[in-house]
Amino acid sequence: MNKSVVKFIIGRILRIEAVLMIAPLIVSFIYKEDRVYQFSFLIVMAVLVLISYLLCRGEVDKRQMYAKEGFIIVSLSWIILSFFGSLPFVISGDIPSFVDAFFETSSGFTTTGSSILTDVEALAHSMLFWRSFTHLVGGMGVLVFALAVMPQTGSESVHIMKAEVPGPVFGKVVAKLSASARILYMIYLSMAAVMVVLLLFGGMSFFDALLHAFGTAGTGGFGVRNGSILAYDSTYIDVVLSVGMILFGINFNLYYFILIGRIKEAFSSEELRWYFAIIGSAILFICLNIYTTYESIGIMVRDVFFSVSSIITTTGFSTVNFGEWPLFSRMILLSLMFFGGMAGSTAGGLKISRIALLIKSASAEFKRMSQPNRIVVIKYEKKTIEQDALRSVVNYLLVYIVIFIALVLIISLDFNDFESAFSSIVATFNNIGPGLGVVGPMGGYSGLSDWSKILLSFVMIAGRLEIFPIIILFSSRTWRR
Amino acid sequence: MNKSVVKFIIGRILRIEAVLMIAPLIVSFIYKEDRVYQFSFLIVMAVLVLISYLLCRGEVDKRQMYAKEGFIIVSLSWIILSFFGSLPFVISGDIPSFVDAFFETSSGFTTTGSSILTDVEALAHSMLFWRSFTHLVGGMGVLVFALAVMPQTGSESVHIMKAEVPGPVFGKVVAKLSASARILYMIYLSMAAVMVVLLLFGGMSFFDALLHAFGTAGTGGFGVRNGSILAYDSTYIDVVLSVGMILFGINFNLYYFILIGRIKEAFSSEELRWYFAIIGSAILFICLNIYTTYESIGIMVRDVFFSVSSIITTTGFSTVNFGEWPLFSRMILLSLMFFGGMAGSTAGGLKISRIALLIKSASAEFKRMSQPNRIVVIKYEKKTIEQDALRSVVNYLLVYIVIFIALVLIISLDFNDFESAFSSIVATFNNIGPGLGVVGPMGGYSGLSDWSKILLSFVMIAGRLEIFPIIILFSSRTWRR
Repeated sequence: MNKSVVKFIIGRILRIEAVLMIAPLIVSFIYKEDRVYQFSFLIVMAVLVLISYLLCRGEVDKRQMYAKEGFIIVSLSWIILSFFGSLPFVISGDIPSFVDAFFETSSGFTTTGSSILTDVEALAHSMLFWRSFTHLVGGMGVLVFALAVMPQTGSESVHIMKAEVPGPVFGKVVAKLSASARILYMIYLSMAAVMVVLLLFGGMSFFDALLHAFGTAGTGGFGVRNGSILAYDSTYIDVVLSVGMILFGINFNLYYFILIGRIKEAFSSEELRWYFAIIGSAILFICLNIYTTYESIGIMVRDVFFSVSSIITTTGFSTVNFGEWPLFSRMILLSLMFFGGMAGSTAGGLKISRIALLIKSASAEFKRMSQPNRIVVIKYEKKTIEQDALRSVVNYLLVYIVIFIALVLIISLDFNDFESAFSSIVATFNNIGPGLGVVGPMGGYSGLSDWSKILLSFVMIAGRLEIFPIIILFSSRTWRR
Repeated sequence: MNKSVVKFIIGRILRIEAVLMIAPLIVSFIYKEDRVYQFSFLIVMAVLVLISYLLCRGEVDKRQMYAKEGFIIVSLSWIILSFFGSLPFVISGDIPSFVDAFFETSSGFTTTGSSILTDVEALAHSMLFWRSFTHLVGGMGVLVFALAVMPQTGSESVHIMKAEVPGPVFGKVVAKLSASARILYMIYLSMAAVMVVLLLFGGMSFFDALLHAFGTAGTGGFGVRNGSILAYDSTYIDVVLSVGMILFGINFNLYYFILIGRIKEAFSSEELRWYFAIIGSAILFICLNIYTTYESIGIMVRDVFFSVSSIITTTGFSTVNFGEWPLFSRMILLSLMFFGGMAGSTAGGLKISRIALLIKSASAEFKRMSQPNRIVVIKYEKKTIEQDALRSVVNYLLVYIVIFIALVLIISLDFNDFESAFSSIVATFNNIGPGLGVVGPMGGYSGLSDWSKILLSFVMIAGRLEIFPIIILFSSRTWRR
């Protein structure tokens, strides 16, 4: 284990967090908030800079960095970022309990959007801003961001990229890592900016528009009003957000293809077609299931479209209490929670490409069983999928299932009903936000015990980092000499 | 497709069903039941013999039989057996609805034990006998039974054996198939006979003892009293059944090993150790979870032991309403429902050996991720597991998951709560019997709609035959010229 490089990079990450806190600090000044808010950010920034200085002071071992160090850096960074990110909430008193604040900040950075707040509107503007800002930052990865702004020539970049960027990667867009990250960031921020403008047209204040754009871009889902998007009661805003969420659930490499004129290539993406097919079928089935309960078909389609795109992109905004829909519709949403958005997007979940490959494997197995002499080849994105690539997807699923079941068992100690317990893990592990039952869109995570909140905080981080980095961090093997 | 051989073998299977019905007919005479009961069996027997004659009349194509024909024969046989097996219930009027009777008979043959009856005690003795007798027959496979009594020299035996015997097979015990089947049958019937004697000692009537032995041997779970085993209120009977269920959940090849003196080999089975470890941990965790609700620790351990062995062996007898236990305990039982007993036993579920291999694969993946250069080998039963063997287990899991999710979605149209809907599929697909919620041990399947009952009947058959035969039967590819 090359500890010096771990210390060094984490030190630099902490410095970045201090820099990021300048934004809410400015907000606090703009809104002329009580000094306690400015103090909260300043004190934490000071601590971050100090620790950063201490960590970066020593000699950095220039030896090669391996995958293990990459995983350790990524998992430790996310935990430490959430830890320090939660302190302004505690110090200012807006979220007095540290456990609650840690849950909320982990939920923010991991772009989950699960909340322990029962009254969002009671928070100061600077706190609301910081809360939503973590979505934007967490969306495409704090560490990749770090690589983009501070180019590394060493080997650490690849390992960090591998550990932090979600989804199976089946192709490389740009050879040079930091250049690639920068281009994707440009696309990401430009799209977020367009969202702000479109939301302003819908009558939102600049503050609200900005924060909702953060929540949409990061597929996070923190809002600024009690009752999420329902509070705005505007079909225009509903539609803008629905479409926006779906766009942020698309693989950003496809936008890059469009940008460099390879438009046909972008639209021929098989994952994209799966993504739209799943969204379309989900909307159709839910509408068929609930159409008797709506007077207006237009309003129904609007609500269903919003809920489906909010859930499949793992954003978690809500305009309607889908917890009151019939079980069949709830089950469809629950399935979508596992699916998640496309690989290479800001969405969580298993990712559409994994789902597509798993379904294709299952159907190949049917063919093999009925015609044992036939050689069945799995094709995806016009390429034959090798056994090794398939095996890694399947192994990921196995690990996912084993951990998922263990988590449901543990969390069930804190619940009475299956739907709430099960969906609390589904919604946090896949970084959705709201689940069903008591943790549904009109409920929340405030009623959970402290140890459940801490568990779920780590579940959100494990889900965002796709499990392995967190497992390796907590594995005794890692720390054995 | 070699249709003549399919017709021929199904014809012979129907003749066997006619012969099997002699048993309940005798029971009907012994209890001097109303003539309608004797008539019900006789008329069905006559129809069976007639159809059998018509099917077996033609020329049999002596060409090789392939896996496809094996699957078709097995799946068709089970459906047809359940169809004709249900007719005596309908004709006698004890279960007037055909859908209910079909559900009950499928549940019997597949050794599930799910019931649509709200008053078991209202049934005639002959009907109760036939209902439980299907467990005994279904337990080790009607078709393997057929092979055992009517030795085949052709190639069909292997394909039928492969399609009908549950669980992944990692070794062959006896070379000659029919000899092997006969030895296993001897063990099976002897153990069932011992059960009868032990239950008689507990004060059960001979009739009750016999039927409960059928239910235990087949890991089925049909009882003869309202309230299942609770009705006997006897710790002795509870313990005999608990131990009996666990013994019938063990791979019968191990008994064969013991029989031929290879005792050490039997006890060194890794699957056996997993089986006991899982049972032990489940009992421990549930006891820790519910010990405050029991006054006597002895009674608690007895109840938990019974419930755990009933669920993991997929039998489904009950002495306590575990649906009222806290969620954590219910979740443990729900997990056990997926596990099932050992491969090569009469139990359903995924089978312990698959679970063990899947857990080992997941943990191997952890090791691979943390040390990418290390070669991780999976050992099971002292042998290195090849990629191909592993792949078939994993592919089975994939297919299982895809179908499972589809089934939960469909059945949720007929339910309001997640726990009932989810567990109704878990309990039928894994051939347990009772689930949780409204289909729990003190509830039942009577309240479901007819189409749900038909769906679940096929789910039970698909679960018993481990999916593929049923899929192949319903695949359009199979019937294409």
